[in-house]
Amino acid sequence: MEGTAIHDLETPAVLIDLDVVEVNIQHAQSLFDDLGIGFRPHIKTHKLPFLAELQMKQGAIGIAAQKVSEAEVFVAAGFTDILLCFNLLSPAKIARVRTMTDQAHMTVVVDNLDVVRALSGGMAGAAVPLDVLVECDTGMGRCGVQSPEDAADLALAISAAPGLRFAGLMTDPAPGAAARVQAFLAAARDLCIAAVGSCDVISGGGTPSLMDAGLSPILTEYRAGTYIYNDRSLVERGACTLADCALTVLATVVSRPTATRAILDSGSKSLTSDLLGLDGYGTILGYLQARIMGLSEEHGNVDLTDCIQRPVVGQKVQIVPNHACPVSNLVDRVVFHRSGVVLREADVAARGCVT
Amino acid sequence: MEGTAIHDLETPAVLIDLDVVEVNIQHAQSLFDDLGIGFRPHIKTHKLPFLAELQMKQGAIGIAAQKVSEAEVFVAAGFTDILLCFNLLSPAKIARVRTMTDQAHMTVVVDNLDVVRALSGGMAGAAVPLDVLVECDTGMGRCGVQSPEDAADLALAISAAPGLRFAGLMTDPAPGAAARVQAFLAAARDLCIAAVGSCDVISGGGTPSLMDAGLSPILTEYRAGTYIYNDRSLVERGACTLADCALTVLATVVSRPTATRAILDSGSKSLTSDLLGLDGYGTILGYLQARIMGLSEEHGNVDLTDCIQRPVVGQKVQIVPNHACPVSNLVDRVVFHRSGVVLREADVAARGCVT
Repeated sequence: MEGTAIHDLETPAVLIDLDVVEVNIQHAQSLFDDLGIGFRPHIKTHKLPFLAELQMKQGAIGIAAQKVSEAEVFVAAGFTDILLCFNLLSPAKIARVRTMTDQAHMTVVVDNLDVVRALSGGMAGAAVPLDVLVECDTGMGRCGVQSPEDAADLALAISAAPGLRFAGLMTDPAPGAAARVQAFLAAARDLCIAAVGSCDVISGGGTPSLMDAGLSPILTEYRAGTYIYNDRSLVERGACTLADCALTVLATVVSRPTATRAILDSGSKSLTSDLLGLDGYGTILGYLQARIMGLSEEHGNVDLTDCIQRPVVGQKVQIVPNHACPVSNLVDRVVFHRSGVVLREADVAARGCVT
Repeated sequence: MEGTAIHDLETPAVLIDLDVVEVNIQHAQSLFDDLGIGFRPHIKTHKLPFLAELQMKQGAIGIAAQKVSEAEVFVAAGFTDILLCFNLLSPAKIARVRTMTDQAHMTVVVDNLDVVRALSGGMAGAAVPLDVLVECDTGMGRCGVQSPEDAADLALAISAAPGLRFAGLMTDPAPGAAARVQAFLAAARDLCIAAVGSCDVISGGGTPSLMDAGLSPILTEYRAGTYIYNDRSLVERGACTLADCALTVLATVVSRPTATRAILDSGSKSLTSDLLGLDGYGTILGYLQARIMGLSEEHGNVDLTDCIQRPVVGQKVQIVPNHACPVSNLVDRVVFHRSGVVLREADVAARGCVT
């Protein structure tokens, strides 16, 4: 399909503009180079070793993944430094991480003693201990210890646990919480150093807060995923413009039942039903006043009331989805292009990795 | 994995209770047998030929699918009567349908002249014309002609188009619109018969309205998908109970950061971010007061404030998701069980069929 115009592709199709990807990678890496903070891209957005290699070539220190099965795809592809940002409890999953330590430097996270015990049990007798970060809840309200004191207590437990090494702290900050992140992590680091003598890594993250990374100077590394593609949620938050969005969904208008309604052949199975607090399910390029007001699995229901120009049946449109990451997970293949000319299709190697 | 207790499975896992499936199939088929309406299960919910075979054995007249690629999976598995409920415009997709007509009786739908022209072009010279239904918008506000008169005009266009045969009417009704469905379709049928001499098939559908199918006696067949698994949206609408829900997501509590918060290892990648107008993202069996208040891709964020008993770290829970169909599309495999004992794993054969 090399050389095909994207508008000649069957729809729906997930398109990735490689020119935009390259600029996004370079832009973020330069930011962290200037700050002197290590950059660790999260592969959850693209799930493609080929793009992670581009990120490494630009200077990334390693990658982050969320699931053991995702990490396995990237270890098999030759990546040697992976942070797995998720509490692991099952002996089978921990055994799989241990297997990967033969080929890669693996780091995991914990936020409670049960996970410390499970990891230590799974690493019993290991020649080299597994690096463990303590996850800190600095305002996101998801996983993480609730106070710097709890972080230090857990650091102590890790240090005392056979097979594990306390390697530092990790947080998934709420957007706009840089000052709070700095205060929490600085206090936690000092308490951890007092308790166990070291605290090497301090890992922050998140694309929405990426431009504010310098406001948390305590960070030694930063994780971000979505920045490589960007999406409508980031445009609406002012973190980027539509021109910075590399991932679009190509869809066909299959029906115009009324003067103000269009139906697309792309629904939640390709656009994702993630709203992320937004109104509607995506931005249609060239029809910015159109509102994708509803999705069924295969239908996108578009309100054209506010549009002066309206697309006709058979017309193909490009949509910037609310959230790029789940779109990568919905399709077996994505299509890379430059300026609308197809380069190649790529299998989404780490799609559907739920365990 | 046969004989394993479901609570010993790695999480997240999508579980299907085959006992419940069998009852759901039988219950719906009996209803339509009693009404004298043909029942055409929609395979979008399970995407599994094995379950469609059970549906056929109980008396289904054929199956419905939404995408050409879904239909191809089922034709390859030996199914011989398929209704494709989606406007087809691309010559490549129509050629694929034409290929399938060698092995199966294919019926398609249209709601506008462009689709009639595209189908006719693709069927040029065919020995047997392709059966075409006119989709009618009886209140759903998605695809479909807007009036009985428009339906008859389109029937005439189909009749005049080489390679096509007008076979009848199809609608995806809004829940609770049985009277409107009956009135619209009765008027459309009469006009179509006056215009072209016949109107064989009148196809209604939808699990939410399934129990009201008898209120639209004009229907000759009925399509429904979700009824085979059911889900929280149907429980909340009063269409079924939790005990009728065959599909659950098994997840592990990986963190209890606070007294009132639990984090599950199942997020939008296994539970789906579909809200369908509900509050929260699923019902946790045994913890009905727990509220899955947020999902990230891999985290389920649960508010336990109203729970007397609260699950601990490491505990596995079963969740009835808001919407069963997208869950089938999110995972490569589902696990069948009876009374919590695993029967077998099955690849979701028609997962990810977007074109």
